[in-house]
Amino acid sequence: MSRADRVAARLAERELDLLLVTDTVNLRYLTGFTGTNGMAIVGAQERRFLTDFRYVERAKAELDGFELQRAPQELRTALAEGWPPGSLRLGFEDQHVSVRLHADLRRTLPDRIELIPAGGLVEAERAVKEPREIAAIRGAAAVADEIYEWLAEQGLTGRTEREVALALEQEMRARGAAPCFPSIVAAAENGALPHALPRDVPIPPHTLVTLDLGARLDGYCSDCTRTWATGELADELAQLYDTVLAAQEAALAAVRPGREAREVDAVARDLIAAAGHGEHFGHGLGHGVGMDVHEAPRLARTSSARLEAGNVVTVEPGIYVPGRGGARIEDLVVVTESGHEVLSGTSKAHRVVA
Amino acid sequence: MSRADRVAARLAERELDLLLVTDTVNLRYLTGFTGTNGMAIVGAQERRFLTDFRYVERAKAELDGFELQRAPQELRTALAEGWPPGSLRLGFEDQHVSVRLHADLRRTLPDRIELIPAGGLVEAERAVKEPREIAAIRGAAAVADEIYEWLAEQGLTGRTEREVALALEQEMRARGAAPCFPSIVAAAENGALPHALPRDVPIPPHTLVTLDLGARLDGYCSDCTRTWATGELADELAQLYDTVLAAQEAALAAVRPGREAREVDAVARDLIAAAGHGEHFGHGLGHGVGMDVHEAPRLARTSSARLEAGNVVTVEPGIYVPGRGGARIEDLVVVTESGHEVLSGTSKAHRVVA
Repeated sequence: MSRADRVAARLAERELDLLLVTDTVNLRYLTGFTGTNGMAIVGAQERRFLTDFRYVERAKAELDGFELQRAPQELRTALAEGWPPGSLRLGFEDQHVSVRLHADLRRTLPDRIELIPAGGLVEAERAVKEPREIAAIRGAAAVADEIYEWLAEQGLTGRTEREVALALEQEMRARGAAPCFPSIVAAAENGALPHALPRDVPIPPHTLVTLDLGARLDGYCSDCTRTWATGELADELAQLYDTVLAAQEAALAAVRPGREAREVDAVARDLIAAAGHGEHFGHGLGHGVGMDVHEAPRLARTSSARLEAGNVVTVEPGIYVPGRGGARIEDLVVVTESGHEVLSGTSKAHRVVA
Repeated sequence: MSRADRVAARLAERELDLLLVTDTVNLRYLTGFTGTNGMAIVGAQERRFLTDFRYVERAKAELDGFELQRAPQELRTALAEGWPPGSLRLGFEDQHVSVRLHADLRRTLPDRIELIPAGGLVEAERAVKEPREIAAIRGAAAVADEIYEWLAEQGLTGRTEREVALALEQEMRARGAAPCFPSIVAAAENGALPHALPRDVPIPPHTLVTLDLGARLDGYCSDCTRTWATGELADELAQLYDTVLAAQEAALAAVRPGREAREVDAVARDLIAAAGHGEHFGHGLGHGVGMDVHEAPRLARTSSARLEAGNVVTVEPGIYVPGRGGARIEDLVVVTESGHEVLSGTSKAHRVVA
């Protein structure tokens, strides 16, 4: 079954006749189209794709199993016609479609077509990776590992956070990949910010440095965080690291099909709370990774997801002590039929990189 | 008046009490916040800003004139309370807010608060640049000029389109800037695609190569297209270039305050149609540039904008002949009180770069 066939099968479960796909990443997943202005309509029989003048040639080369229709740049104006006969229930991606586009669609579509919120159908397919997708993510994870080894040779102390961040991103590009989010290099008190911006400040010795980076390769992302020491550490920081590592490994061990995402989150969270740092772990345990660096399923207290084979997720607990510093350790892991396989190959043992 | 004050003044015109700002670029413009999870509420008296755990420290450092409130990661849950008394008309950015978020907001907000579509208010402010914004764009345009000079020295023939694209982006980064969109390097028949992807194909001699690049510097973008020849050209291609250049210069001359955007578009379009290429110019003449590389105002047949001093727009007609090739020439131009000033400094004269 093609991806579009699988999405069409999900439509029946929701009593929908058709799905209007507008999100660019979902479009790429479903149709192969890499441009930025497209719409697809998917149903049991229907495989219609709209793009404008600028992307028609690209669409001809890329589309797989869809019928191409050239439309005005304001694509939705072409949706006034071309529909199968009768009353139709048309799902749309309500988490992506803006209130304005929805109003415009309502004005454009024939009255016999009902618009039904149906977000997450393509995302649900994307959350379960095909073997070739896992292979692509494995490749992207290997680039992250290479960058970490390269970085360990370069050293950290005395260089500014920004220098290090720029250099590692350039090294990714030299290896044919690209950063899939702005890299984090956060030393000392900056490590207390989970989403720290690299500063024009030299990295001091004897502190923790949180490094969070991901590579995009062949359209798929990786995501890996390591926290290294730039010398011998004060006991407080060393203990903080050990607590994060213990929480990360315990949560990782809990990753297997059938497990509720919030249970896995709780494994790490309880351990960190028991060490007295409950209030210092303010984010979720992890997230899915694929064509987007953040996608389904979410591993968090409020997640309703249940892990299944083919999910690729991060496991990344952290402790952030304002004014003092922080540590986060993140692996990328694929849920397998029998449990899980860690895709991140860089050592998590306490590591001094001066 | 601060930016928030000016937006608040626009609220009165629409009989709104408050505006909920959710778009990240609008948030950055209005509040200074550079994170990716924030919401602001702006009114005559109100300056409230919400972000979560991960960004609280950053927000403290960046916010200008807003009161910070720490909220759960699902920010809108904090909107159940904290409102001024009485019935309120709350505008929201309907071109950005998804149908799902809108439904969630409706469930969360007190009944006395009415949600009114009000997209474009911040964008309207952003379209008229402050002197310091024009200075930033001028800097970004200068980087693009430098890259073109550097590229002319490097040469084109025999290198692949992708090599050239990667190299010029790396050169931008070496100069402290970053590409603000994927660069286009499109030779020969690939030049017939307005949004061509660079190919792993060597650039041949005696053809046209369309180069479209932009730099982001200090948070602002530039955008500049040049089409160079890699040697002596067949008459057809040389004439095509001359037609585009004539259309570009004529349209540029029409840029001044008070002019309707669609009139300026028509100047170029009529000239290209008169040369027999009407069907080969399928996109609009240009777009605003600022914190985003595409923003208000649009220069197109269907635009209802009227140019005013402080607008920064591109003027970029093109001709695309399927299977044969194409040319586009694009300048970045600021609308001044007395007319306009071109920010792109790279020559548009027919240029051979072998």
